[in-house]
Amino acid sequence: MKVVCSKEKLLEGINIVQKAVSAKSTLQILEGILLKAEGNFKMTGNDLEIGIECCVEADIRSEGTIVLNSKIFGDIVRRLPDSEVLLEVKENDKVIIECENSHFEIKGIPSAGFPEIQTIDTENSFKIKQNVIRDMIRQTIFAVGIDENRPTLTGIYIESNGSELNMVGIDGFRMALRRKVSLEEFNIIKVIVPGKTMNEIVKILQPTDDEIKIISSKNHVLFDLGNVKVVSRLIDGEYLNYKSIIPEDIETKIITNKKDILGSLERASLISNEDKKYPVKFSIEEEKIVLSSSTEIGAVREELRIEMDGSKMEIGFNPRYFIEALKVIDDEKIKIVFTSEIGPCTIFPISGDDYAYMILPVRIKNDV
Amino acid sequence: MKVVCSKEKLLEGINIVQKAVSAKSTLQILEGILLKAEGNFKMTGNDLEIGIECCVEADIRSEGTIVLNSKIFGDIVRRLPDSEVLLEVKENDKVIIECENSHFEIKGIPSAGFPEIQTIDTENSFKIKQNVIRDMIRQTIFAVGIDENRPTLTGIYIESNGSELNMVGIDGFRMALRRKVSLEEFNIIKVIVPGKTMNEIVKILQPTDDEIKIISSKNHVLFDLGNVKVVSRLIDGEYLNYKSIIPEDIETKIITNKKDILGSLERASLISNEDKKYPVKFSIEEEKIVLSSSTEIGAVREELRIEMDGSKMEIGFNPRYFIEALKVIDDEKIKIVFTSEIGPCTIFPISGDDYAYMILPVRIKNDV
Repeated sequence: MKVVCSKEKLLEGINIVQKAVSAKSTLQILEGILLKAEGNFKMTGNDLEIGIECCVEADIRSEGTIVLNSKIFGDIVRRLPDSEVLLEVKENDKVIIECENSHFEIKGIPSAGFPEIQTIDTENSFKIKQNVIRDMIRQTIFAVGIDENRPTLTGIYIESNGSELNMVGIDGFRMALRRKVSLEEFNIIKVIVPGKTMNEIVKILQPTDDEIKIISSKNHVLFDLGNVKVVSRLIDGEYLNYKSIIPEDIETKIITNKKDILGSLERASLISNEDKKYPVKFSIEEEKIVLSSSTEIGAVREELRIEMDGSKMEIGFNPRYFIEALKVIDDEKIKIVFTSEIGPCTIFPISGDDYAYMILPVRIKNDV
Repeated sequence: MKVVCSKEKLLEGINIVQKAVSAKSTLQILEGILLKAEGNFKMTGNDLEIGIECCVEADIRSEGTIVLNSKIFGDIVRRLPDSEVLLEVKENDKVIIECENSHFEIKGIPSAGFPEIQTIDTENSFKIKQNVIRDMIRQTIFAVGIDENRPTLTGIYIESNGSELNMVGIDGFRMALRRKVSLEEFNIIKVIVPGKTMNEIVKILQPTDDEIKIISSKNHVLFDLGNVKVVSRLIDGEYLNYKSIIPEDIETKIITNKKDILGSLERASLISNEDKKYPVKFSIEEEKIVLSSSTEIGAVREELRIEMDGSKMEIGFNPRYFIEALKVIDDEKIKIVFTSEIGPCTIFPISGDDYAYMILPVRIKNDV
């Protein structure tokens, strides 16, 4: 293999595929990046959970493949001058990296054992703008569970049917649901993608209107960005019937400024002890809400003007669940709907149904 | 105590004095900030190595003192709205922090046991611009030793006499020396200030022409910035006769572009193993220098055009020592002077004697 490409493009590709490379693997080859010059020049990282392939513009002088340790290769290319880089495989899998007056010789690994990424037939697919899917992931991923005893909850549920695309994260105490209605028809896809994979994908997606294609098979999903392809294994199993979770009985409804209630909750959570998870008490009155908390560190009381409809109530929440949901909501004003003093509450947009963030309450002591 | 001040000024002060507060101390009071409203409003942090006092503009409604846990106090103030903050001590050392609709009650600690910072008589002092002393610290601190068996080398040596101010860091393998010649007369000061203290001071100093006053006593040094005063204990003992360390015999002299040699060394060091500290070999020829290294990871060879005067030579160095020195040199071109293939080398400015970075060589195997 002998290729020449710009340092900039090469580094761009390395930065992308490195997201799928194991830092420490029992298989040495999985700590590497596969370089493959065959028609085009492609790099691949694959930790068997997620595989990323990136096509890099290059002048191929002779075809071939090799695997290079990802960290060493990345560190070297990152430091090279901004110029043309020559990559050449010599005898005994020795790889030459040359750029201006810099000359490296690094030991490569034969590519035979490297797991190339899964190819998926393109029947079951839909297209969506990068910025849309990027936002939807960001707005649901924080609510994904980490309990390995409930494996289906450790992923984001992606459900497209007809004209609607839903993404859902649930960890047993809360739910984040984002919905996108499109004029184009979506193909039907129902997959649970591991949260870990989604965390990497969201870093690769750009805030652009460019479209990506999402393709699913029984065991895998492919995010096709054109030059970059990301394949993830799927989590097997039935996802919770999330639509039934959104409460329909409403006892109290408030409308509040998002930034103000977020600031108040962030302050109120300062004196809670992270280990002991003290709740913040929401005391909803006719024109105001009082958020309060009392711990061994001290006491806090925050007051906010709101619009309220329904009964007064007192209810406690883990402030972190509220804060994380509020942080990803872009609206200036929000609606919060309470079912009862012991039932879930849900954050909705003032109008429409683009999102629903449901949070279960926690018991509060009466002396709080 | 009852004071009102702006959140902005209060937070500025907290951020400064927190640099002297122990994160974890066996004395709970040392994890706190002393607030003292007596004529003016002052905050103090003191871990007994370094003490920082900061005067904050405030409306004092009643005098008094209290100590507040630094982390909790800082976290709360950081999150408050940008408005006026009321601080008030109530019965049982309870402290009210109030800002707009936020109301906190935190347990304070009586100030009786708090070590206020050392006062120093102002005989032995000199003035210098903040940006000058800031640069001098930054340009020497990396070379300070960490070996507690050689305590004097764990500090920066500050020596002012007549018209010259020198700052020196030595760790046994290298020396960083910065010199400032001033038209004003300096008072004579010779102190060794702990590197840890200097690391905090450099963060407080601003890149401005404002003057600071440096005052020394037998055991302490005070950096007086006006509103902020930093006191550090001194390291006891005689500092090395650093002037005698700078080699006078010159066998080879090269002139090179700083950025180019820094880039080459950074690349050459990539394949050295941090644990094993492989050296980089400098092969100096008539018009070029070749930097090379060979380890179990691979081999690297970097070539640079230079101006050379003297004999050809081959000599090995720990690349990190070179890199750290080159990074703090602002000149475009530098002079590097070699005494012999087993002797120290020194980086100087092309003209003048504003700095000298001396580095001891390491042995190289012949097959490198």
